[in-house]
Amino acid sequence: MAAADGGEADHLAGERATAQFDVDGMKVAWAGSRHAVEVNDRMARLVASDPVFRKDTRTMLPRKELFKDTLKKAAHAWKRIVELRLTEEEANLLRLYVDQPGYVDLHWGMFVPAIKGQGTEEQQKKWLPMAYKFQIIGCYAQTELGHGSNVQGLETTATFDPSTDEFVVHSPTLTSSKWWPGGLGKASTHAVVYARLITEGKDYGIHGFIVQLRSLEDHSPLPGITLGDIGGKFGSGAYNSMDNGVLRFDHVRIPRDQMLMRLSQVTREGKYVHSNVPKQLLYGTMVYVRQTIVADASKALSRAVCIAVRYSAIRKQFGAQAGGPETQVINYKTQQSRLFPLLASAYAFRFVGEWLKWLYTDVTQKLEAKDFSTLPEAHACTAGLKSVTTSATADAIEECRKLCGGHGYLNSSGLPELFAVYVPACTYEGDNVVLLLQVARFLMKTVSQLASGKQPVGTTAYMGNIQYLMQSKCAVNTAEEWLNPAVIKEVFEARALRMAVNCAQNISKAPSQEEGFSELSPDLLEASVAHVQLIIVTKFIEKLQQDIPGHGVKDQLQNLCNIYALHLLHKHLGDFLSTGCVTAKQGALANEQLGKLYAAVRPNAVALVDAFDYTDHYLGSVLGRYDGDVYPALYQEAWKDPLNDTVVPDGYHEHLRPLLKQQLKLSRL
Amino acid sequence: MAAADGGEADHLAGERATAQFDVDGMKVAWAGSRHAVEVNDRMARLVASDPVFRKDTRTMLPRKELFKDTLKKAAHAWKRIVELRLTEEEANLLRLYVDQPGYVDLHWGMFVPAIKGQGTEEQQKKWLPMAYKFQIIGCYAQTELGHGSNVQGLETTATFDPSTDEFVVHSPTLTSSKWWPGGLGKASTHAVVYARLITEGKDYGIHGFIVQLRSLEDHSPLPGITLGDIGGKFGSGAYNSMDNGVLRFDHVRIPRDQMLMRLSQVTREGKYVHSNVPKQLLYGTMVYVRQTIVADASKALSRAVCIAVRYSAIRKQFGAQAGGPETQVINYKTQQSRLFPLLASAYAFRFVGEWLKWLYTDVTQKLEAKDFSTLPEAHACTAGLKSVTTSATADAIEECRKLCGGHGYLNSSGLPELFAVYVPACTYEGDNVVLLLQVARFLMKTVSQLASGKQPVGTTAYMGNIQYLMQSKCAVNTAEEWLNPAVIKEVFEARALRMAVNCAQNISKAPSQEEGFSELSPDLLEASVAHVQLIIVTKFIEKLQQDIPGHGVKDQLQNLCNIYALHLLHKHLGDFLSTGCVTAKQGALANEQLGKLYAAVRPNAVALVDAFDYTDHYLGSVLGRYDGDVYPALYQEAWKDPLNDTVVPDGYHEHLRPLLKQQLKLSRL
Repeated sequence: MAAADGGEADHLAGERATAQFDVDGMKVAWAGSRHAVEVNDRMARLVASDPVFRKDTRTMLPRKELFKDTLKKAAHAWKRIVELRLTEEEANLLRLYVDQPGYVDLHWGMFVPAIKGQGTEEQQKKWLPMAYKFQIIGCYAQTELGHGSNVQGLETTATFDPSTDEFVVHSPTLTSSKWWPGGLGKASTHAVVYARLITEGKDYGIHGFIVQLRSLEDHSPLPGITLGDIGGKFGSGAYNSMDNGVLRFDHVRIPRDQMLMRLSQVTREGKYVHSNVPKQLLYGTMVYVRQTIVADASKALSRAVCIAVRYSAIRKQFGAQAGGPETQVINYKTQQSRLFPLLASAYAFRFVGEWLKWLYTDVTQKLEAKDFSTLPEAHACTAGLKSVTTSATADAIEECRKLCGGHGYLNSSGLPELFAVYVPACTYEGDNVVLLLQVARFLMKTVSQLASGKQPVGTTAYMGNIQYLMQSKCAVNTAEEWLNPAVIKEVFEARALRMAVNCAQNISKAPSQEEGFSELSPDLLEASVAHVQLIIVTKFIEKLQQDIPGHGVKDQLQNLCNIYALHLLHKHLGDFLSTGCVTAKQGALANEQLGKLYAAVRPNAVALVDAFDYTDHYLGSVLGRYDGDVYPALYQEAWKDPLNDTVVPDGYHEHLRPLLKQQLKLSRL
Repeated sequence: MAAADGGEADHLAGERATAQFDVDGMKVAWAGSRHAVEVNDRMARLVASDPVFRKDTRTMLPRKELFKDTLKKAAHAWKRIVELRLTEEEANLLRLYVDQPGYVDLHWGMFVPAIKGQGTEEQQKKWLPMAYKFQIIGCYAQTELGHGSNVQGLETTATFDPSTDEFVVHSPTLTSSKWWPGGLGKASTHAVVYARLITEGKDYGIHGFIVQLRSLEDHSPLPGITLGDIGGKFGSGAYNSMDNGVLRFDHVRIPRDQMLMRLSQVTREGKYVHSNVPKQLLYGTMVYVRQTIVADASKALSRAVCIAVRYSAIRKQFGAQAGGPETQVINYKTQQSRLFPLLASAYAFRFVGEWLKWLYTDVTQKLEAKDFSTLPEAHACTAGLKSVTTSATADAIEECRKLCGGHGYLNSSGLPELFAVYVPACTYEGDNVVLLLQVARFLMKTVSQLASGKQPVGTTAYMGNIQYLMQSKCAVNTAEEWLNPAVIKEVFEARALRMAVNCAQNISKAPSQEEGFSELSPDLLEASVAHVQLIIVTKFIEKLQQDIPGHGVKDQLQNLCNIYALHLLHKHLGDFLSTGCVTAKQGALANEQLGKLYAAVRPNAVALVDAFDYTDHYLGSVLGRYDGDVYPALYQEAWKDPLNDTVVPDGYHEHLRPLLKQQLKLSRL
């Protein structure tokens, strides 16, 4: 079997035998193409077979050792990339499967793109070749101790000094300390630093500057620069492999040409001038980054689901009859009703992520043609998808951990680290609540323009159908009718639109638009979520309208699509009922159908997670092992803990024996 | 101010000045009595002022050092308890404020109670004095690698050998290895071990045995006993201070009189006999343990809420006008709508926990009078409250962490560790889903007996009102009418009853009761939650019917009670609408009232968390500091990380410099 890392017996063979579809076909549907299956598989195996990339003791390493291990893996990965002359696609996948956050992520993911996006051609020519060869290591220094979401509130200053043709970069307050940038604390030699540009006594707001932080000779911080790591973060292992950093400037001088000058420049004389490059070009990058975050969500969620599904098929509890075996916990309806919606979500997020990749191409082409008309919609759509998929994934990983019972709490289950390393996705690149409010603003604007006849585009096109959707009635009379995609789509459209319209009406009653928006913001969050869930459901349905080869593959995806939609309907039943989109009776029928769909998924569950094609190395979980041989693995893993180095623990003689021997030295008061 | 640990300026003074109630009065309401405030405060300060109990670097300690630190703290705590001749109440509080899981918890919390509850008088006389003096350290060895929730499935055997008058304790399989018991891995000398009692060739099921595990001379495991720690768990610090252990027996012999013989005995000849002590007595212990778990939930939740409320009042983001300060994030309605329901939940759980303490006394008295009539109801009620409060608290801690933005992800915020150390409460002492299904069984039985006229008791008494509640109509016409406790109670009763009756009706349509129960189990979980939420709402309302001294204290609690109830109504609107308990219009009015209640809480929020009276030591959070001086504290905390021991990191010469200098040794293939 493709994903096995070895092992003898397959304890999940029985589960695999009941699958009613072509698993290889599903792998292609999941990965996107046969090529993608092949290259993913090849890179995952390359990493899994290389002892340097071992991660089984990662959660046991003290911080310094963990960081050193990260430096080692990064250098080794680069070595392998060069030696094997990997393509960019292969190199990215190799880094993905190394699966350990580190400075490299920021170097390639933020530093290089910032220079590409905001640097002039000349600047790109100067800096990019060095970055490409790792002659310099860069990070992205934006957020400050006192300033996160509100970029316009940053305090760091870059004041132009015409007498020397330099900018003076300075941290005027404690709260202006750069805080959080990954790779900043220990590894980076350079950073793109965001600061308020001040010239001729005027503050021109936030701009980017390339600043060298450390000596290229001995890695010591340059004069005027204070650098450090901001300390331990959630979990063992997890994001602690990253040197998120703090940075303070004490009047640090950089040449004028290290301001990133694609969009605006400061002249030799200190004049601030805009270039003719449209600002909107920057949005392309945002769409790109958020698309990768949605892709990461499906990756993280599918890992957690893979572990929980396999272990639920192995774990047995209760239900033994006459001394026979107990029941596999995956057979319990309560387990299915919690687990299978997450399995469905993994697929749903995967496909909406794939669509977002297309959207990015589309946006890029339009930007090149200076067509900015669809940009606000694309921006709202990606912001919303980033928010909804990352929040759902964070919750889902923890739910998968709970679905694994007590053993899910052990680091060897892989789930605690997966959760801890994943949750920052809810905060970085736009706090999820802030993003949903941006979506809400766009929705309110769209609703308000409907009256003037402006046709909404893209993922808001359905709102143009307002006359119909505001009074449509769901016609479902039997549970089976809930399997009709057109029915599902319509109730999700009606729900989203009616919630948005309700909000708009309530806002209009407020003394001002701004006050109304603020007052109604909790409701607006819910309206935004409804809109984004509609997008995900719609893209899943559209995916199923395509040709999907492989015996039974489409049938399985159809079940998952229905589970995804109907579990949302059940979870948010209050939305659907209060807006009159469905009746209580119809809600009950949807729930009834959901139970039938779980039963249909049950024999395919293990094969559906096999289709993710993850190596045991990448999963990093004794509970999620491909061969299901869980108990010996759990047992063996325990003995690796440093606490088991000795039978009698350190501290026995000082702190246990005196207690047991009644020899504590007491000072009676 | 009482809870401050020092510091100069009070950055939250403005917040404290707006409070509309007597904070000292609220402290009494929270703690339960003036005496409780005093003793809590005194013990918390005793711990906070003792350098041995420092925990600010706990998350940075490697496992072995962390464990050694735990042994040290445990011995020191015992030393202080003896030196200061603390009462049992004081000693328990001191251990609570030491706030580091360790073997002591199991010794006092499980080993001693097991002997008290299941041991004969003779056995108690022999073992308890040694345990009380720590001449032996005990743990509670029940769960096995393959067996958790289903105690009847345990595999360890204790076979009576009449030839030597001994039991032979044995682990017949790998999955029978004892797995998880706290204190077992490294610290305990003894355990109460649960095993299948076999005598005269017959298996009499699970019984408890006192087994010595380690030599009292040198702490080495006794012959035939394999002992170890089961490895790292979720988070840094957190539960890793505990030596959850693995234990295997290879035909270990113990004297017959080490079987716990209060309820049944094995005679010298090997005859199995029941004593005349009723089995129901054991339930008292279960009610007791679960009551402490509910108390712990309010403690953990209130800590998280305290941190999030204070930091939300300090943190400013967006909304700056003309260069002025930004807006405190606590002023955003989205922040309030997420945070204040959690504040309300902390109080709600506190009061229902207090009531559970009363219930335990009541149950104990009835048991002593051999009145077992209310036991099933008390059992269902405590099981349900354990499940609902721990699940809600786990989610709430993580929500509080997210409400603190990026900085909540740092260990110095205290929230990652609080989450990681708390979440096992959802699994131990009964998995939350398994417990809710037990509640559901009881509810279904109660419903089925209504027809025969059997009057339901205690927390299910409302079900006797079935004629009225099945067709009652909520009369709310304005948002204000939702402030009426009678109205709230009735809609919660109607919702819970109608959901239970729906389930019972659907089950009755199934081929068998068992099949129906299994098929409907996801719905039954929801019905159980509805029932338990009703209990919590009701107990909060009843609390407010008592005299509560202190200016404005009751008004504030009234607001919190309404927030608790109405946020549940909004969250579970689907339940209320689909059962016809409220109309869509009434749901919208409840939501409108909720917004007004948030506004009423806003000026009191900081004072309401001050009333928890937590020291900065106990909170363990730079974000939750009493004085609100967050940023310098965050900055200082960062430098404690071992990664900051050197400016140039370990590994630079091996793994960074060669990369930067293009000197990686490549082997071109």
